[in-house]
Amino acid sequence: MEESTQSIRVIDQRKLPFHFGALDLKSVSDAFQAIAEMVVRGAPLIGVTAAYGLYLSALGTSQKKWKGQIRQSAEMLKGARPTAVNLSYAVDLGMAEAEMSGDRDTAIARLLDLAGRLAEEEVLRCRMIGEHGLPLIREIHERSCSTVHILTHCNAGWLACVDYGTATSPIYLAHDQGIPVHVWVDETRPRNQGARLTAFELGQHGIPHTVIVDNAGGHLMQQGQVDLVLVGSDRTTRHGDVANKIGTYLKALAARDNNIPFYVALPSSSIDFEMNDPGDIEIENRNAEEVTHMEGRLEEENNVVRVRILPAASRVANPGFDITPARLVTGLITEKGICQASLEGIQSLFGK
Amino acid sequence: MEESTQSIRVIDQRKLPFHFGALDLKSVSDAFQAIAEMVVRGAPLIGVTAAYGLYLSALGTSQKKWKGQIRQSAEMLKGARPTAVNLSYAVDLGMAEAEMSGDRDTAIARLLDLAGRLAEEEVLRCRMIGEHGLPLIREIHERSCSTVHILTHCNAGWLACVDYGTATSPIYLAHDQGIPVHVWVDETRPRNQGARLTAFELGQHGIPHTVIVDNAGGHLMQQGQVDLVLVGSDRTTRHGDVANKIGTYLKALAARDNNIPFYVALPSSSIDFEMNDPGDIEIENRNAEEVTHMEGRLEEENNVVRVRILPAASRVANPGFDITPARLVTGLITEKGICQASLEGIQSLFGK
Repeated sequence: MEESTQSIRVIDQRKLPFHFGALDLKSVSDAFQAIAEMVVRGAPLIGVTAAYGLYLSALGTSQKKWKGQIRQSAEMLKGARPTAVNLSYAVDLGMAEAEMSGDRDTAIARLLDLAGRLAEEEVLRCRMIGEHGLPLIREIHERSCSTVHILTHCNAGWLACVDYGTATSPIYLAHDQGIPVHVWVDETRPRNQGARLTAFELGQHGIPHTVIVDNAGGHLMQQGQVDLVLVGSDRTTRHGDVANKIGTYLKALAARDNNIPFYVALPSSSIDFEMNDPGDIEIENRNAEEVTHMEGRLEEENNVVRVRILPAASRVANPGFDITPARLVTGLITEKGICQASLEGIQSLFGK
Repeated sequence: MEESTQSIRVIDQRKLPFHFGALDLKSVSDAFQAIAEMVVRGAPLIGVTAAYGLYLSALGTSQKKWKGQIRQSAEMLKGARPTAVNLSYAVDLGMAEAEMSGDRDTAIARLLDLAGRLAEEEVLRCRMIGEHGLPLIREIHERSCSTVHILTHCNAGWLACVDYGTATSPIYLAHDQGIPVHVWVDETRPRNQGARLTAFELGQHGIPHTVIVDNAGGHLMQQGQVDLVLVGSDRTTRHGDVANKIGTYLKALAARDNNIPFYVALPSSSIDFEMNDPGDIEIENRNAEEVTHMEGRLEEENNVVRVRILPAASRVANPGFDITPARLVTGLITEKGICQASLEGIQSLFGK
């Protein structure tokens, strides 16, 4: 993400790994679209993009009604994707800055400053998640004296988080320190963020990895081929129940059944300190076309096309997230350290 | 499957649902290829095809060395796909017929007769599985007075089984008797037999169904949207451990975690009465291209193409099956009735 004074440049993640292209967001509507259509995705990045969206909104307001217009933008942005709490976290922080501003120009300056600060904070949080998660990987390696096999679901890498990533951060650090790691990358249907983004990221970083279909992880765990499961989170309740990409719950069940540690790496911006009941988390139902169609490269012609992979008559359901109950989570890896996935655990680190 | 005296006509399942086409198997190599490349698939159909393969082998032998040649064919056929026990079950029955034959012509006649008999038996077994499974669906309907929501994985329908299917057989019968049913169809990566075959079958039969990605089933169970899980099996040990399409184990875990009955529908030809340890079941590792590539229809041009959906540099693993431990199976629905997934349960029905 790069900023000029008039627009924000983001990587268009929809096109990866086939094209590495950028998109300039010039208005709050652009930011809304980018979040809703998953040009940008991943809880931390969604938050940062929303903060820049509020800045772009302020830029686009009239001298007279600027505050009301920013308030409207804030509401709109919050509706772009309901599940990730980072979105409302960032928008609320932005609105607080706007409300404190005496005039439009101050609001513009404060919002730009906030967005930059949030981006820096997320990078720092991700870096710290890496530092705190690293000993888990190191211990496994020291015990086994061999490669540490880590399974991950979806993309909780730097693409999702400005830099380092959440779940990938300890992996990058371990690799950089010479600990042999190998990552089982869940394809992550329907949008294939694992196959398309995590595999791309890990490949760029030179980290050994193997892509598997989402169905395969349980079998690999039964066969003793997974030492650790590491995933991110879009929203975690104050009791440690984890909303993450659909399918995470199934991997948590398999990890428990095979006595494999299951950790969730997340910045505190993904913890919803207000939420008690995970049933209150809105689970996004996404477009059926994500299931019925698939994008890929035609090898003869080298161009990327979209194909229909289902019989035309069949109905489709497409829930985007599921809830992994706290009882299945070995621990939360946060920027402040590792804690139990429980009210007491979270309070011990964050005091709330 | 249709037979002439010189060839066996099968539906080419690789092309469904985009094309409904047939293929004529004219030699034992054709039968071997059809099984290995999944022109035909599904444990019962694999067995029947192998039996016809032995017949075609006998047809192609020389007068002199016919018995040795049939023995060679039997070995070859058994290696076409290792996991489904129906394959070796049918081949062993065929070899017994051949060994008992005094001359080549007798062997040809006996093998043709056997293959037809096996096909008829599988149809009958599937029909009986339907009869025995039907009360499970009826009871749920009578208790809830509403539609019965059944989740299934892969394709255990008539396409897999000559007719009726195993897991689908009770569903077809319930629907035909006016019990309202709705089927959650797991897409079933990597080959999408759920999305391509089960959805096609159910659609043809007018049964309400919804296709979901494999990741979604756990969430639907948590939400109370699944009343029953019904799957097939490629091989079940005498203790009731179930080898079935990769990902079945994850659904069994989720069913257990949500107190949802998880039944396996299988003919006795899928029970390996000799096998104690599920670790002895060979889990097929299939071609990486099943994961890296996807087939679908280009809507503008209406033709079916194959696209690459992964970064070219990423390694892939593709185990085809997993083992669902007997402890997670509520019951086995067989042609002789329902039993516990245990040695005692299986012995109570089959005496061995």
